[in-house]
Amino acid sequence: MTTPLPFRILSTAQALPQRVVTTAEVAALCSVPAGVAEARSGVRERRWLSEGETALALGAQAAREALSAAQLEIGDVDVLLNASGSQLQPIPDGAALYARELGASGLAAYSLHGTCLSFLLALQHAALLIGTQRAQHVLIVSSESGSLGLNFAEAESSLLIGDGAAAVLLGPAESAAQGLHAARFETYPEGAAHTQIRGGGSLLNDRSPGGIQREDYLFEMQGLSILKLASRVVPGFLERLRPGLSAGLPGIDRVIPHQASASGLALMRRYGWPEERIEVTLPTLGNVIAASLPLTLHQTLSSGRANPGDRLLLVGTGAGLTVGGLIVTL
Amino acid sequence: MTTPLPFRILSTAQALPQRVVTTAEVAALCSVPAGVAEARSGVRERRWLSEGETALALGAQAAREALSAAQLEIGDVDVLLNASGSQLQPIPDGAALYARELGASGLAAYSLHGTCLSFLLALQHAALLIGTQRAQHVLIVSSESGSLGLNFAEAESSLLIGDGAAAVLLGPAESAAQGLHAARFETYPEGAAHTQIRGGGSLLNDRSPGGIQREDYLFEMQGLSILKLASRVVPGFLERLRPGLSAGLPGIDRVIPHQASASGLALMRRYGWPEERIEVTLPTLGNVIAASLPLTLHQTLSSGRANPGDRLLLVGTGAGLTVGGLIVTL
Repeated sequence: MTTPLPFRILSTAQALPQRVVTTAEVAALCSVPAGVAEARSGVRERRWLSEGETALALGAQAAREALSAAQLEIGDVDVLLNASGSQLQPIPDGAALYARELGASGLAAYSLHGTCLSFLLALQHAALLIGTQRAQHVLIVSSESGSLGLNFAEAESSLLIGDGAAAVLLGPAESAAQGLHAARFETYPEGAAHTQIRGGGSLLNDRSPGGIQREDYLFEMQGLSILKLASRVVPGFLERLRPGLSAGLPGIDRVIPHQASASGLALMRRYGWPEERIEVTLPTLGNVIAASLPLTLHQTLSSGRANPGDRLLLVGTGAGLTVGGLIVTL
Repeated sequence: MTTPLPFRILSTAQALPQRVVTTAEVAALCSVPAGVAEARSGVRERRWLSEGETALALGAQAAREALSAAQLEIGDVDVLLNASGSQLQPIPDGAALYARELGASGLAAYSLHGTCLSFLLALQHAALLIGTQRAQHVLIVSSESGSLGLNFAEAESSLLIGDGAAAVLLGPAESAAQGLHAARFETYPEGAAHTQIRGGGSLLNDRSPGGIQREDYLFEMQGLSILKLASRVVPGFLERLRPGLSAGLPGIDRVIPHQASASGLALMRRYGWPEERIEVTLPTLGNVIAASLPLTLHQTLSSGRANPGDRLLLVGTGAGLTVGGLIVTL
């Protein structure tokens, strides 16, 4: 056991696209019956970017609202972390673009990336910086525009993905118990091909000798294979994160899960986790990739369903296949 | 002042493409005279990927050699960090692809990103994990294939960029002095447009309403603007990293700089840093983006020009504009 890393969540905020897209609309694009689509995906509606909106603008809006909620200014932030599954542009790093939008100059700005779990990686990194007194205020921005990469020939993923942004501002702890009590990440690359966008990096692009097809730029997901691999590795992962977690919620007040899918959320019932302690935003937001975890955290905190002193389990799976979890005392 | 984070460099390794490309060859592609090209760029030759080689294969090769040099196996590694400027594919994260190449399963695998300074960000993160006893062995892989994104209409950047990979394996300190003594990153987004690849992320791609041009996927660099901004901000940055660094090398045995360009390296003379203490790989490797720093570190350590107990300054500028530096005792 290592000692906890003291830090505190100062504020959270969200910024959502204007346009609400019903599951019936997406079902029509994918040529599947609307009733089946909603029952299978567990998503009733999600937000999608419309013209004039960008992941950059949404992320910056969430960041400004988190700063304002904590009565701080961007000049008070030591480190700005971009924790998004998709990139804004290949160069420079997205954090520099957020820094420009926010009028910052001279702060540290960079990204942590692990697709859907990027926010958890950034939260652990922020806890390391604040907990070892290397930073006072760290601002994490997660913003996603996954709707731009959907392949409507693949109904399963098209029905799941929503767009949106969240920001979380962190600062020094006020009590000894506050902070990060456990963190663990495990990657099982036997599942690397289960969730992919194959085209657009150095391995496959428009200059590749064999050329590139439009579909190569789009999201591909093998839901059943992900679920089988996750079912196998998650119980052991949970026990390594905190003994007892694969059969209950010892000492955990609330679970903030990544909103991967209805069947992903259903997996948690196997671990004996009481449904009323699990936060769910999937029906109204869909799977917002790396922004799902901070959006769900924001909705939990802003609704008063978690309060100072409460212990949260933030947990999820992402492409890789990667499983990750943090135990945080508010 | 914060306390040092104890860790030790266990081994370093490099993997370079087979093909050596002379500056005369690149000069011909860019339609500039060969003599002028070499004098301006400071690069005599660089490696470029040829058919059958990939950034993934090179990075994995460097990782295997670093493990072998330390007499460790991939199963001994707790955390695998991908620290590369360019991505292998958008999803999953590159670290999962390296984990797959290396036959790993169950370790933590994710990326830190800040273009050319990604390795420094990963090294700081590794020091935080090892120094707080959250990990024992961390393996960092930086691998670049920038030659795939060159625009030969822009001679300045085309002449600079080389391909290659390096890996650095880190473990617990053996003495109290070993480890990270200072770290600082500052981003000045007024320079965000000075180094760009604009196309291929969510802001501009082949589904964008206005379409995309082939040039949008390629590297753009405004060398003079970068140099002007760097000249203005670097001295203050150095003083904040360690007082006295803008006018000498107090307590620093060797400088491992990012090999941005000949004029970038020349900037250091202004700070009164003795030339014989500054490591240079630019003439034979070019600017290898995020791999330049670990490649230069590898060449310094493997040649015996730095030894246990020596204090290194790893420092550079990258797209953003970001300035970063670490002070590490070997």
